[in-house]
Amino acid sequence: MMEKIDQTMLAFYEQADLSPDLVKAITYSIKAGGKRIRPLLCLQVLAGFGLDLTASHYQVAVSVELIHTGSLIHDDLPAMDDDDFRRGLPTNHKQFGEALAILAGDGLFLDPFALLAEADLPEAIRLRLISELSRAAGSFGMVAGQALDMAGEGQSLALADLQAIHANKTGKLLTFPFVAAGLMAGQSQPVLEQLRQAGQLVGLAFQVRDDILDVTADFADLGKTPQKDLLAEKSTYPSLLGLDKSYEILDSSLDQAQAIFADLALTQGFEQTAIQETIERLRLHA
Amino acid sequence: MMEKIDQTMLAFYEQADLSPDLVKAITYSIKAGGKRIRPLLCLQVLAGFGLDLTASHYQVAVSVELIHTGSLIHDDLPAMDDDDFRRGLPTNHKQFGEALAILAGDGLFLDPFALLAEADLPEAIRLRLISELSRAAGSFGMVAGQALDMAGEGQSLALADLQAIHANKTGKLLTFPFVAAGLMAGQSQPVLEQLRQAGQLVGLAFQVRDDILDVTADFADLGKTPQKDLLAEKSTYPSLLGLDKSYEILDSSLDQAQAIFADLALTQGFEQTAIQETIERLRLHA
Repeated sequence: MMEKIDQTMLAFYEQADLSPDLVKAITYSIKAGGKRIRPLLCLQVLAGFGLDLTASHYQVAVSVELIHTGSLIHDDLPAMDDDDFRRGLPTNHKQFGEALAILAGDGLFLDPFALLAEADLPEAIRLRLISELSRAAGSFGMVAGQALDMAGEGQSLALADLQAIHANKTGKLLTFPFVAAGLMAGQSQPVLEQLRQAGQLVGLAFQVRDDILDVTADFADLGKTPQKDLLAEKSTYPSLLGLDKSYEILDSSLDQAQAIFADLALTQGFEQTAIQETIERLRLHA
Repeated sequence: MMEKIDQTMLAFYEQADLSPDLVKAITYSIKAGGKRIRPLLCLQVLAGFGLDLTASHYQVAVSVELIHTGSLIHDDLPAMDDDDFRRGLPTNHKQFGEALAILAGDGLFLDPFALLAEADLPEAIRLRLISELSRAAGSFGMVAGQALDMAGEGQSLALADLQAIHANKTGKLLTFPFVAAGLMAGQSQPVLEQLRQAGQLVGLAFQVRDDILDVTADFADLGKTPQKDLLAEKSTYPSLLGLDKSYEILDSSLDQAQAIFADLALTQGFEQTAIQETIERLRLHA
C-alpha cells in the first residue's frame, strides 16, 4: 500500500514535463517521505468498508498528501518557521532556493484538483471531494489555521484559542481522508459525521503528539530541529497544561477515535483491524 | 459587470471568517483592482453566445481572477521579483509581511476550487472547469511557466524558448476564461478549440504588451516599478526583436483573436461587439 501511494504521486508528476526544475523540487519533497498517514487512513477506511482499492481511490488518497507536502514546504520558508531540515534532509528552499520552493508549494496546492476532477468516480462524488478538500485546505481551513498560529506567536493563548488554531491548522486536513473514504464508500450522512469526528480526534491527537515530541525528542528522532516551539514562544499543549496532561489528552482522543471504529464495526460491519492498528501507532509512552 | 465581479470575490471571502488577518490580506489584493480582464472576457464570451448571466457564471469568471491575484502576490515576494509596488499600492508583503503574503497567495490558489465545485451548473461542466483551471494554473501551466522564466533569467533566450515560457506563464490562465465560457455555453469541441486559440492569442498579446510597457511606461502609467526586466536581464520581446517588431506581434495577435470572433459571429450567431471592444483596448500605439 505504501509503495503504491508513492507511485501514484510520482506517476502524476512524470506527466508534468514542462519545467524539469519544478518537477525536481516537487518530487524531492514527495520522495523525502514521511509517514503517509493521510493516504493510509483514507485507504484503510475504504478497505474497512469492504471496497477493493482502485487507482482512483489512490488518486483521492494522495490528493491530500500533495497539499500537505506543499504546506510543509511553505511552512519551512525563512519568512515562516525558517527550518533548515525536514525528515532529516535539507528543506526544499535549502536545496533549491526560496523562489523554486515557493513555486513547488504552489504547484502542490493547485495540481491535486485536476487529479480529483479526472478520477474514475461518480461525478457527484468527485465534486463533493473537491469541495471538501478546497475548504479543508484553504482560507476556510488549514491556511486560516496557519495565519491564526502566526498571530498567536509570542502570546500566551487560552486553551480554547489553541484548540481553534489546531482544529483548522491540522484538524481539517486530517478529517479529509476519513470523510473522503466515507463518500467513496457511499456511506450515509450520519456515518459521514462519525467519520468526520474520528478525523477531528485523530487531528487533535496529531497536534498534541507533535507538541509533545517537540519537547521530548532529539534531532535524530524528529528529523528536524526540536524545541522550535519553545524558541518561538508558542503556546502548546505541554506549555499550557504540562506534559502529563498532554499525554492524557493524546490517549483520550485516540481512545475516542478507536471507539468510533469499534462502533462502525458493530453497526456497519466495518472491518476495523487495520485502522485500529494505525491509530494505535500514534500513541506515545511517557 | 465590473462591480458584480468585485462583489462576487468579496462575498466569497466574507464567508471565510476564521482568520481576520488572512481575509484582510487577501481582500487587500483583491481590492487593489486591476483590469479584471480574465472575468470580463469570460462573461463577455458567455453573453456573446446569448446566455443570461447568473451568479454561477460570475463565480466561474472570478475563480481564475483569484488565482491570478494569488500569483501576483507570490511573484512580488522578495525571493521572486522583489517588487514594492503593484497597481500603485504597496505590494502585499510590504503591507502585511512576507509570511501572511505567502499564506494569502496559498488561500487564493486553494479556495477557487470550492467555488467551482459548488456552482449551480451541470456536474460534468463543473468537473471540466476544475480540471481546466487546475492544469492551466499549476505544474502543467502557469507555475511551470514561472519556473521556466526564473531558469531563463540572465540568459539570452531563443525566441522559441521565450514563447514556451509565455505560453505557460501567461497564456494558459488566459485561455481559461474563453474555454470556460464555451463549456458553460454548451459549445461543440471545434468551437472550444477556436476559443482556446483565441485565448492563446490574447495571452501572447498580453505578454508582449507587458514587455513593451516595461520599456516605454513610467511608474505613473504602470503602477509598479518599470524596467524591471532590463535590470533582471530578462529576455523579452523588445530585447530579442526590438520595439517595432514587438508592436507588430501585438497587433497581429490581436487581429487574429478578433478574426476568430468575427468567424464565430458568422457561423454561430455570436454577438461580438463587446468582446471585440475589449480586445481592441489591448492595443498600444507606438
